[in-house]
Amino acid sequence: MTLLTTTSSPKPKPLMPTMDVQARPDERQVALTHAGIQKLLLPWAFKDNTPLVVSEQQTPIQLALSVTLPPEIKGAHMSRFVRDSNQWRDNAPLSLQSLKPLLAQLTQSLQSSSAQLTARFTWFVDKIAPVSQLSAPLGYEIVIRTSLDASQQLTTHLTLTLPMATLCPCSKEISDYGAHNQRAYLTVRMDIAEEALHTVSLTQLINELETTASCPVFPILKREDEKWVTERQYDNPQFVEDVVRDAVVLLRQHKGLNGFYVSVEALESIHAHNAFAQTAEGSLSEAILL
Amino acid sequence: MTLLTTTSSPKPKPLMPTMDVQARPDERQVALTHAGIQKLLLPWAFKDNTPLVVSEQQTPIQLALSVTLPPEIKGAHMSRFVRDSNQWRDNAPLSLQSLKPLLAQLTQSLQSSSAQLTARFTWFVDKIAPVSQLSAPLGYEIVIRTSLDASQQLTTHLTLTLPMATLCPCSKEISDYGAHNQRAYLTVRMDIAEEALHTVSLTQLINELETTASCPVFPILKREDEKWVTERQYDNPQFVEDVVRDAVVLLRQHKGLNGFYVSVEALESIHAHNAFAQTAEGSLSEAILL
Amino acid sequence: MTLLTTTSSPKPKPLMPTMDVQARPDERQVALTHAGIQKLLLPWAFKDNTPLVVSEQQTPIQLALSVTLPPEIKGAHMSRFVRDSNQWRDNAPLSLQSLKPLLAQLTQSLQSSSAQLTARFTWFVDKIAPVSQLSAPLGYEIVIRTSLDASQQLTTHLTLTLPMATLCPCSKEISDYGAHNQRAYLTVRMDIAEEALHTVSLTQLINELETTASCPVFPILKREDEKWVTERQYDNPQFVEDVVRDAVVLLRQHKGLNGFYVSVEALESIHAHNAFAQTAEGSLSEAILL
Amino acid sequence: MTLLTTTSSPKPKPLMPTMDVQARPDERQVALTHAGIQKLLLPWAFKDNTPLVVSEQQTPIQLALSVTLPPEIKGAHMSRFVRDSNQWRDNAPLSLQSLKPLLAQLTQSLQSSSAQLTARFTWFVDKIAPVSQLSAPLGYEIVIRTSLDASQQLTTHLTLTLPMATLCPCSKEISDYGAHNQRAYLTVRMDIAEEALHTVSLTQLINELETTASCPVFPILKREDEKWVTERQYDNPQFVEDVVRDAVVLLRQHKGLNGFYVSVEALESIHAHNAFAQTAEGSLSEAILL
Repeated sequence: MTLLTTTSSPKPKPLMPTMDVQARPDERQVALTHAGIQKLLLPWAFKDNTPLVVSEQQTPIQLALSVTLPPEIKGAHMSRFVRDSNQWRDNAPLSLQSLKPLLAQLTQSLQSSSAQLTARFTWFVDKIAPVSQLSAPLGYEIVIRTSLDASQQLTTHLTLTLPMATLCPCSKEISDYGAHNQRAYLTVRMDIAEEALHTVSLTQLINELETTASCPVFPILKREDEKWVTERQYDNPQFVEDVVRDAVVLLRQHKGLNGFYVSVEALESIHAHNAFAQTAEGSLSEAILL
Repeated sequence: MTLLTTTSSPKPKPLMPTMDVQARPDERQVALTHAGIQKLLLPWAFKDNTPLVVSEQQTPIQLALSVTLPPEIKGAHMSRFVRDSNQWRDNAPLSLQSLKPLLAQLTQSLQSSSAQLTARFTWFVDKIAPVSQLSAPLGYEIVIRTSLDASQQLTTHLTLTLPMATLCPCSKEISDYGAHNQRAYLTVRMDIAEEALHTVSLTQLINELETTASCPVFPILKREDEKWVTERQYDNPQFVEDVVRDAVVLLRQHKGLNGFYVSVEALESIHAHNAFAQTAEGSLSEAILL
Repeated sequence: MTLLTTTSSPKPKPLMPTMDVQARPDERQVALTHAGIQKLLLPWAFKDNTPLVVSEQQTPIQLALSVTLPPEIKGAHMSRFVRDSNQWRDNAPLSLQSLKPLLAQLTQSLQSSSAQLTARFTWFVDKIAPVSQLSAPLGYEIVIRTSLDASQQLTTHLTLTLPMATLCPCSKEISDYGAHNQRAYLTVRMDIAEEALHTVSLTQLINELETTASCPVFPILKREDEKWVTERQYDNPQFVEDVVRDAVVLLRQHKGLNGFYVSVEALESIHAHNAFAQTAEGSLSEAILL
Repeated sequence: MTLLTTTSSPKPKPLMPTMDVQARPDERQVALTHAGIQKLLLPWAFKDNTPLVVSEQQTPIQLALSVTLPPEIKGAHMSRFVRDSNQWRDNAPLSLQSLKPLLAQLTQSLQSSSAQLTARFTWFVDKIAPVSQLSAPLGYEIVIRTSLDASQQLTTHLTLTLPMATLCPCSKEISDYGAHNQRAYLTVRMDIAEEALHTVSLTQLINELETTASCPVFPILKREDEKWVTERQYDNPQFVEDVVRDAVVLLRQHKGLNGFYVSVEALESIHAHNAFAQTAEGSLSEAILL
């Protein structure tokens, strides 16, 4: 084991390095799918494809940026990822449609055949209370993962996570009164075809997907709203399995999806552990790791 | 600003350091309340003061260990914290009563007037389903913070976090049927007098404190249990304010507490945000930071 | 134990509740220091007191809002916290000086003698690479905790967390070459007097406090910058104890602070655990819980 | 949108449910790959395949347990997962070889064609300081994901995460003295063939994989060890790309792997963001989602 082999003096250093260490040849014959940076936080904006609501929001966006490294190249020039992404902020907000040119720029800056970008941020949608009609924004976690391969093929995965309520059908049925309910989180990942990117709206997807809940959650609920929400939950019991299935039925109707993955986790109010269900179809059906 | 002051060669190094850097004098006139290590994970055991259940559990314990540093000492000898705590594992399980000699050893090893130890671990209590009587263990997060000061005064803060269910009294009252409920977490911190440490049992405290819930949570619930639990929740609505108050009433009856802090956070099933309430009495009444 | 007492029918419900459940009297004689909501996320803006850089930033702000509850009041009207805070966003950005009127409004809306607000967000400061002068924003975690008590006394705690590098003085001294270094996090909490709030700038504090590092961290570093930063670290070794002490020396010079707390945690590159040091002075000297 | 459709009375309930809700037919034609529970924590033990060290450790294990649900079945009987897994604890420690019969039992209990189990826990390995030879345990995060499909085919993914130090080759080369280094985390996921499960030892893999670091991390380091470790880091600079490649070279030599995935994330001491690299081969080469 190399651990116990020590030396008493450092390796000699060349007086004047004439070539970046990163650019030197590597002899291990190992290609890397990704080399880059993670958890870079930048203040930026995201623009959504929807004419009905405020469609651009300023927000910190957490980025992962990387390129593919062939076996013979030792390392990526990490500083270029930060330089490039910092410049992007001046030009335009991030959007599902702005990603391809950014990835193309990375492949050029980093002299690589393909590049990947992941962006994480919070997207707010105004939620209107069902009776009082009082409105306030609710934040949803968004993850966009995208890659551009050597043949200029773009792959885009959009992931949305929605808080919601589920009320247990079994508890309702077996109990003389009441039914346990709880906050649950629905996560949907969609593999969106390049030609469909301009049709996808975060706000619209969120509004559509939360109909799978026993009842959506709201920021403001007055007394009359709380009554409505409580009864709505009770009238509409949903197992985690039901939420996943209803989401699948919705997503199957979407044109432009190569595939999708759906998962629901419910923070059971009767247990300290969670119930979950998940499934996937199309291009993502093999992507679930066990 | 020192940032822009650079130098072209490193500071000269003494050929043979004759004194540890940490032991050298410091001239800034700043005493440190804590200098030490955090997030040290060790496999160990904790022993609870209870004759009724399995009272010793093997578990990873995450430790923070530190000493007070007077203004004239530059640094603590960090490796001694690891050496000492690793030796403790051979002698005996950790317990509320074993802490004082460990702290005394740290003050000697580190040549300091006072020492502090924080231990975090999971403690399991068997929970019995209310009807089927099926039993399984449920894990509770425990934090023990303790310090020994220059006059050999021991201070011990025990913190327990309990998952539980709360059902909203308002939702029940205003709704024709149903009532929203959710998982909530009750956190209790107790400042335990030294002479009372031998009377405190984690298992007993957990069993006692979870009666403040609308209904406790259980690992295993068969159909008949789920009916019982659902109806129990509905029969026993509790705001977060009620859980805190019921816990305060319980804790006031405990002898041997110098003070306590109680907090409840409910993961509302009708919102994406949480409801919370908290209060403190006795020695901890000033400890809540805003 | 109440756990085993069940009933076969729910408590009778009044046909028409004439008074909110929350407004009813409570007989347990337990005052609550806080009753409110947590983890409410709103898109808003923060405005900093500095003329030198962009001083207002749009960002999601995570809020905790609460009021004190006297023993005789059963619960707080939770929806009012959301309604009020959502309205604030229309009027003005959040700032250290805007907090008092917001708290005053909460005491009125919730009919309480005192109110508390905690705001968490990321504040970006442009960092300029030391040689290339390339600039990019770096995000810092900010927490502002504030309370208004029954005598209209405002308390404001500002907490900043700064990533930075520390290089170990001991490692440098005992080694023939090299010295271990790592990312560390400096956390400073300041209790700011009301009359000094208009003098405090997040950007200025961050720039000032990061001089306590062996070297600050930067988003963009070209080759020439990386050389500078590497050598700067080596020239300026700092234990966690040193960073805390240097921060204390800086903070003692600040007028308008009633007290402060300083903590540093270094993610040691030679261990899997962390080194830490902390201390406090003035009004916060008793606030460190062990 | 269904959101605005409310009803004034709950759905009628059958007087005596004669069949579990979960067992009823479902008409949406959506199969679920997983339906089950997550974040169930049980005190258990894990047994490693190694004769050289203490090979069985008591520890809390966090479990996810699930089965595949055909389109026509409404829901899984969630309580059976807890009942079964709680019984397993009495029989034997968990091990890589004990998983298949547990999964087989789940398929029977839940009447499903296939089942999945994920186990997360901390595994401790004694690390010996390089000069003083002082020893203490270091904890590593382990995740075992396994599934048994309808044809009784077992798939087992073992994931290890190792803390380690990396020292930047570029920083060393361009600087007159010093070199930035930091804690990094190497994550390796292995798809282990069923017939090779009895040959795999966590302890052995950890010891082998940490040779890819600039230097491993240790719990206890005396002065002489710290000198050794500091110089070892400096003598052995490694980019994240190098660590991944060295791990790939090691893993290619392992018999019994259908494929593997390797990722390294370094908490750069010169940045607030992280460097990362990753790649995959064999059965896992398609498993990286972008």
